[in-house]
Amino acid sequence: MRPLLRTKLHPAVVPSISRTGFACSGARALHTTTPPTAFFPRSRPRQARIYPGAPNQHHHIPPHPRTMASSSTTGPVLKKPVTLACIQLASGSDKAANLRHARDKVLEASRTHGAGIVVLPECFNSPYGCDYFPSYAETLLPSPPTREQSPSFHALSEMAREAGVYLVGGSIPEIVESRDEGKTYYNTSLTFSPSGELLAAHRKVHLFDIDIPGKITFRESDVLSPGNKVTVIDLPEYGRIAVAICYDIRFPELATIAARGRRPQQRKDGEQEEEQEPGCFALIYPGAFNLTTGPLHWKLLGQARAVDNQVYVALCSPARDLQATYHAWGHSLVVDPMAQVLVELEEGEDIAVAHLDGGKIAETRKGIPLGGQRRFDVYPDVAAGKVRWEE
Amino acid sequence: MRPLLRTKLHPAVVPSISRTGFACSGARALHTTTPPTAFFPRSRPRQARIYPGAPNQHHHIPPHPRTMASSSTTGPVLKKPVTLACIQLASGSDKAANLRHARDKVLEASRTHGAGIVVLPECFNSPYGCDYFPSYAETLLPSPPTREQSPSFHALSEMAREAGVYLVGGSIPEIVESRDEGKTYYNTSLTFSPSGELLAAHRKVHLFDIDIPGKITFRESDVLSPGNKVTVIDLPEYGRIAVAICYDIRFPELATIAARGRRPQQRKDGEQEEEQEPGCFALIYPGAFNLTTGPLHWKLLGQARAVDNQVYVALCSPARDLQATYHAWGHSLVVDPMAQVLVELEEGEDIAVAHLDGGKIAETRKGIPLGGQRRFDVYPDVAAGKVRWEE
Repeated sequence: MRPLLRTKLHPAVVPSISRTGFACSGARALHTTTPPTAFFPRSRPRQARIYPGAPNQHHHIPPHPRTMASSSTTGPVLKKPVTLACIQLASGSDKAANLRHARDKVLEASRTHGAGIVVLPECFNSPYGCDYFPSYAETLLPSPPTREQSPSFHALSEMAREAGVYLVGGSIPEIVESRDEGKTYYNTSLTFSPSGELLAAHRKVHLFDIDIPGKITFRESDVLSPGNKVTVIDLPEYGRIAVAICYDIRFPELATIAARGRRPQQRKDGEQEEEQEPGCFALIYPGAFNLTTGPLHWKLLGQARAVDNQVYVALCSPARDLQATYHAWGHSLVVDPMAQVLVELEEGEDIAVAHLDGGKIAETRKGIPLGGQRRFDVYPDVAAGKVRWEE
Repeated sequence: MRPLLRTKLHPAVVPSISRTGFACSGARALHTTTPPTAFFPRSRPRQARIYPGAPNQHHHIPPHPRTMASSSTTGPVLKKPVTLACIQLASGSDKAANLRHARDKVLEASRTHGAGIVVLPECFNSPYGCDYFPSYAETLLPSPPTREQSPSFHALSEMAREAGVYLVGGSIPEIVESRDEGKTYYNTSLTFSPSGELLAAHRKVHLFDIDIPGKITFRESDVLSPGNKVTVIDLPEYGRIAVAICYDIRFPELATIAARGRRPQQRKDGEQEEEQEPGCFALIYPGAFNLTTGPLHWKLLGQARAVDNQVYVALCSPARDLQATYHAWGHSLVVDPMAQVLVELEEGEDIAVAHLDGGKIAETRKGIPLGGQRRFDVYPDVAAGKVRWEE
């Protein structure tokens, strides 16, 4: 695994940077009664930082019971129904064309299907592959980048605003250049609000390094560096989602932590935060599984994360392109909290549309009340341990 | 949840009790170069105790790398191939008849199918249901119980010896009576060696309390008390298995901890144990899912535990009896470390036979090397936390 880089630009040179390192392109602040999570740039302005350390904000939500438990004790985790669309995009090698095509499909998801949350696939603006990451990579920090530094950032911001949707912008290759450490690449997902503001960035935490002889060998870590945090994003009128990328889904901890909510932490000043954030209503994974592990594990992993965490799970793949060097499995899907597949595509370009309802989460958790049944006296609660929420 | 009981008999009255509280019926010690796990009664004789506290034994296995990693760093977790058989038993209300029938099928699994490990279903000696637990319950402690106290204990010991197999004796209702606290019931699984010795007991940790309106309502906790530990059992010539019961499978922690191996712990004397035990090669769940959650989650949960932990998973159900008050899903199955179903039964009485091979575990972990890829710098390792290995 490559050593991690920390960008060490002086704050003064990036005066618009939020505490999270990623700032929105628009100027309007998000107004929400819920506390800021990691990568909430505008809701709590503070001294500019690139990659802040441990969380230190005050929250003002009533405390949760120890076991996290069902939504009945915390209010609904999904406040009102919402339509989610996964766009199984057919991308090619022309980045500008990919961005235009993504815009058309995002608008279609919104206008034709009424989606309030739209998801694009992993590496939606480029072909997928280690050979392509450097040449397609964009500079995202300091944020906001210029149009030259990141056409994809601006295209995503604009299509989110134009469509009026929360947009999980799949992922794009990101480059960070520093005098000390040279070029570092990440596989990074940007999520925008309906007003075009950047809400969060997730850098793929678990790099896709597999070697199944005669089937597939792939080593993202030859080129990419990993992200270092769990990413949970507040959509004020709906609730929280978690975003992770592709291979991240093989590591249940990210999902478990996101679904159980954020625990009170010891603050830097030594005091204990009193509040806990609710868990997510959906786990969203832009991903590009392959033709070996796709048929075996793609749907299974989506259902596994759903059944264990009793949340919605959305997996968004690129369409399969047999002319490309990497063949994506496709089969974008949405799974409900009972692990039932609500919609699953084939391999061609298409849009997976599903209606998410907080009642289904509550009904599932009431019927099979895992939240109150966990035995944290027998084993630890991974969500109550030391979790990195920020890079 | 009912308060847990601790039997407070004086050790002097139960001189043959092992440190685990459950002792073998035979007299021969297990000779093994691997360290004793919880419920290994004879390999390290010590002062009699009923329900000992935290582990405090010395182990002598070389330390593991921090991330537990693949079998390549730890030697094979399954030392040689073994045939495992899940007997989907058709039990009725006659306990003696159930025990005789179980014996016939265990012998068939051994002699016809060559099984080295045989699994019986949850509540294999009785009908399943809260109304039945008290009337079928047997006294297992002090161990060994008399034949009058536990005919099932002796039947299991004898059929294991007669068949020459490791026998995971599904589960039976257990009663503990104490002057102070009255009667306490557990759902308890006993595992015997090929020489008829009791190796381990697992009391169901997560009680089956669900309420899906119009479908199924069941509350084991109205009658039963829960067990309080993770159960890992060493089969000296093969390696380790984990046993948990039915609803326990919904809680991934037990599986994760068992598959990753036992971490060095702080001993009571303040010193740190230096060694780590290898993880299990198989997770075994005697279970009796129902006709609502069975079709939705039975196979899914088996596959989920396999894909996340890269081990074999065996689920053993009673055969479906539509004359009984509880209708089991059946569909006993064995899943391989790639989450592929090796064998799955229908609902009638049958035997699921699968051949387990350590090479498949190694191949899976080499191809998709989750063990070395986990990011315990981003989230905690649940297996490295405080785990209860003993009641």
